[in-house]
Amino acid sequence: MDYINNYIEKNKERFLEELFGLIRIPSISSIKDHKPDMSKAAEYWKNTLLEAGADKADIYETEGNPVTYGEKIIDPALPTVLVYSHMDVMPVDPVDLWDSPPFEPEIRDGKIWARGADDDKGQGMMHAKAFELMVKTNTLPCNVKFMIEGEEEVGSPNLGKWCEQNKEMLKADVILVSDTSMIDAKTPSITTGLRGLAYWQVEVTGPNRDLHSGLFGGAVANPINVLSSMIAKMVDENGKVTIPGFYDDVMEVSAEERELLARAPFNADDYKKAIDVKELAGEKGYSPMECTGIRPSFDVCGIWGGYTGEGAKTVLPSKAFAKISSRLVPNQDHHKIADLFKEHFESIAPKSVKVEVTSLHGGQGYVCPIDIPAYQAAEKAYTNTYGKRPVPVRSGGSIPIISTFEEILGIKSVLMGFGLESDAIHSPNENYPLEQFYNGIKTIPLFYKYFAEMMK
Amino acid sequence: MDYINNYIEKNKERFLEELFGLIRIPSISSIKDHKPDMSKAAEYWKNTLLEAGADKADIYETEGNPVTYGEKIIDPALPTVLVYSHMDVMPVDPVDLWDSPPFEPEIRDGKIWARGADDDKGQGMMHAKAFELMVKTNTLPCNVKFMIEGEEEVGSPNLGKWCEQNKEMLKADVILVSDTSMIDAKTPSITTGLRGLAYWQVEVTGPNRDLHSGLFGGAVANPINVLSSMIAKMVDENGKVTIPGFYDDVMEVSAEERELLARAPFNADDYKKAIDVKELAGEKGYSPMECTGIRPSFDVCGIWGGYTGEGAKTVLPSKAFAKISSRLVPNQDHHKIADLFKEHFESIAPKSVKVEVTSLHGGQGYVCPIDIPAYQAAEKAYTNTYGKRPVPVRSGGSIPIISTFEEILGIKSVLMGFGLESDAIHSPNENYPLEQFYNGIKTIPLFYKYFAEMMK
Repeated sequence: MDYINNYIEKNKERFLEELFGLIRIPSISSIKDHKPDMSKAAEYWKNTLLEAGADKADIYETEGNPVTYGEKIIDPALPTVLVYSHMDVMPVDPVDLWDSPPFEPEIRDGKIWARGADDDKGQGMMHAKAFELMVKTNTLPCNVKFMIEGEEEVGSPNLGKWCEQNKEMLKADVILVSDTSMIDAKTPSITTGLRGLAYWQVEVTGPNRDLHSGLFGGAVANPINVLSSMIAKMVDENGKVTIPGFYDDVMEVSAEERELLARAPFNADDYKKAIDVKELAGEKGYSPMECTGIRPSFDVCGIWGGYTGEGAKTVLPSKAFAKISSRLVPNQDHHKIADLFKEHFESIAPKSVKVEVTSLHGGQGYVCPIDIPAYQAAEKAYTNTYGKRPVPVRSGGSIPIISTFEEILGIKSVLMGFGLESDAIHSPNENYPLEQFYNGIKTIPLFYKYFAEMMK
Repeated sequence: MDYINNYIEKNKERFLEELFGLIRIPSISSIKDHKPDMSKAAEYWKNTLLEAGADKADIYETEGNPVTYGEKIIDPALPTVLVYSHMDVMPVDPVDLWDSPPFEPEIRDGKIWARGADDDKGQGMMHAKAFELMVKTNTLPCNVKFMIEGEEEVGSPNLGKWCEQNKEMLKADVILVSDTSMIDAKTPSITTGLRGLAYWQVEVTGPNRDLHSGLFGGAVANPINVLSSMIAKMVDENGKVTIPGFYDDVMEVSAEERELLARAPFNADDYKKAIDVKELAGEKGYSPMECTGIRPSFDVCGIWGGYTGEGAKTVLPSKAFAKISSRLVPNQDHHKIADLFKEHFESIAPKSVKVEVTSLHGGQGYVCPIDIPAYQAAEKAYTNTYGKRPVPVRSGGSIPIISTFEEILGIKSVLMGFGLESDAIHSPNENYPLEQFYNGIKTIPLFYKYFAEMMK
């Protein structure tokens, strides 16, 4: 589309400058001292939206960091796209591992190097500039709303409540998010699934104090031995979780979609080499990518108990602890799974110990059907830019706010990510290829165009 | 025996004063600042032995703390008893929990209150005073040697070598030790067995770095899950250790001795109540006391890996660790068991992880046959003092130096302990009943008498 390419060509330096302005604000949400920077970033986003052509843009205070909201309603009868992004970034430690200062963006080797270059200032700014492009070229085919939050990197603790309070204002047909990545620079992909999460802490208590392992060892149950046995029983030899009812609600993926998912390039040797393991594990009957994408997992995230210092201290400890998490797939309700685990784990405890299970955290999984107009519009837009139909990808990770949007606002999200694995998000030397930045600005207006057409 | 009672009656105050003099030297072997006190204690013991009637007594320097050695050889043709004790004590922290200063001995409620009152200054001094009694009453029936070390509380790191270097000097028919306890003040017992020990650290490595538990969880083996399963496999549902060959050398205890051992008063309800557990564990077919006394154990002493801080951090960790120990029974060689475990544990590791087993520590078990003259002399001596035949007891703990004596010197030890469980050794408010102190001085000469008679 010439109008798109021309506009980008004419304004590309300015787009970059505007992104750099945002990047220079060190808006680290997890560090209290940066609180004033969060306000500066909110202000920056407000101006960006107004200058791009929003009818209005405002900063909403929350109990945490502010949310910038802006909109352009061209006709209430037309469909509405709600763009979600976040203005906050991760910390930059260890700062001496950076080749250039994290908040002074630099171009080297065709990439922008800075904290937030990809996650999510770079990807967020693509939406602001694509919006500007559509406004200035009179091609905006529908209404647009922007919701830019300041607490994504700390788990969006206040955005759910804010959505609840602003339900009417946020009404839309789809939420558009660029905060994920593609398979690689030549292989576009759209994340269609995110796993949910249940997270527990368990405490196994044996004797009421640490005992002499000689005088008591053999006659008294050792809580570490017991905890180990209980954990061992949770997954069977086929990699299946043994909690009764655990798989009851798992949404089975159609053969067609499994076939599509399998198109994502995956090289088991490279995968194993990258993490230096000789063999992969996982549930029998599923590929490694299916194990992380469409099947739930059961991982001990941490374990501790007894003597953990230098050398050999003999003790039969009083207590052993573990932090356990299960990644869940769509339709598994994390509340239900939390209860099932607790009930089962306590039921298999031998009478020689006391077991306490505490649920620490949870989030629902998310799935974007590949047959809805918004997904198909995104697919078509990517195909136009990259010359290849994007692959639907089920990510093993969780972005809890996405399922919160669905719960509270009742709106599906389409995750049009342009990041690359090599972007080093959350790490030193975060970067974002200029090509991906501009490809995003080019692809997004196409999404709007196809989406508006399909919704007619 | 009147000569014994009379001598004790006449000298009891002085005996106590001499013990107090030893106690007042704060000879804490684990604290470097007390090094000069170790020399003072060695000097004190030397004088004690000389004044009691030793032909000679000397202080032997080692790479660590000195050893005091003294002897009285009345006739090389007669049997020889080698007394072992230690002059060092445990630290006294937390000192504010003591009701009286730990190195200022006090008599209250018929007990001596001080660090070392029992372990092992009180019990050691009984032997010096019993020796004096026999010398002064012309009733010493055999030769006597004393070996008093200064590093028992830090694991006797130099005594083995010193024994090796002084084999000839230390020749004896039996080693006599009072460093254990009786069942209670009315129930004499003799510790006839000590368990050995093997101690390992295991390290399970999965991926080469901590991974995102969402992106990788389900496809990559989690080292904590794997370690738990491996530990779970080490003991079967009957409480039997599954390491092939583990029980091959276990010395089975005769029905007669099991019957004798079972005479030790044991109340399962009290035992469970004291450590607050609802049920005991252990190997099928053996009583709790047999599980700790005559059967080996397999205990995880410590475990750690992954995230162990506050709250819920999702991670698929790179590594998991455990410290594992096995208490061994007589005839199980700790070197052999260390190798068997290493081989077996590594063999059951799935290919998805790397497993490293390091042997950290080991010691042989010890058993004193109940049919040797020295044991029977001790039995007879106790029976005379307490009016009851002492119960042979297999302790679940380990005193590695006792098996070292057997290995290096080829001499059996008889553990004539007079301590009580309530003596709080190693804890604040250590104490030793005056009655036990004087009963010891009364019983020991009887041991010599019966032993010399039996050896004729």
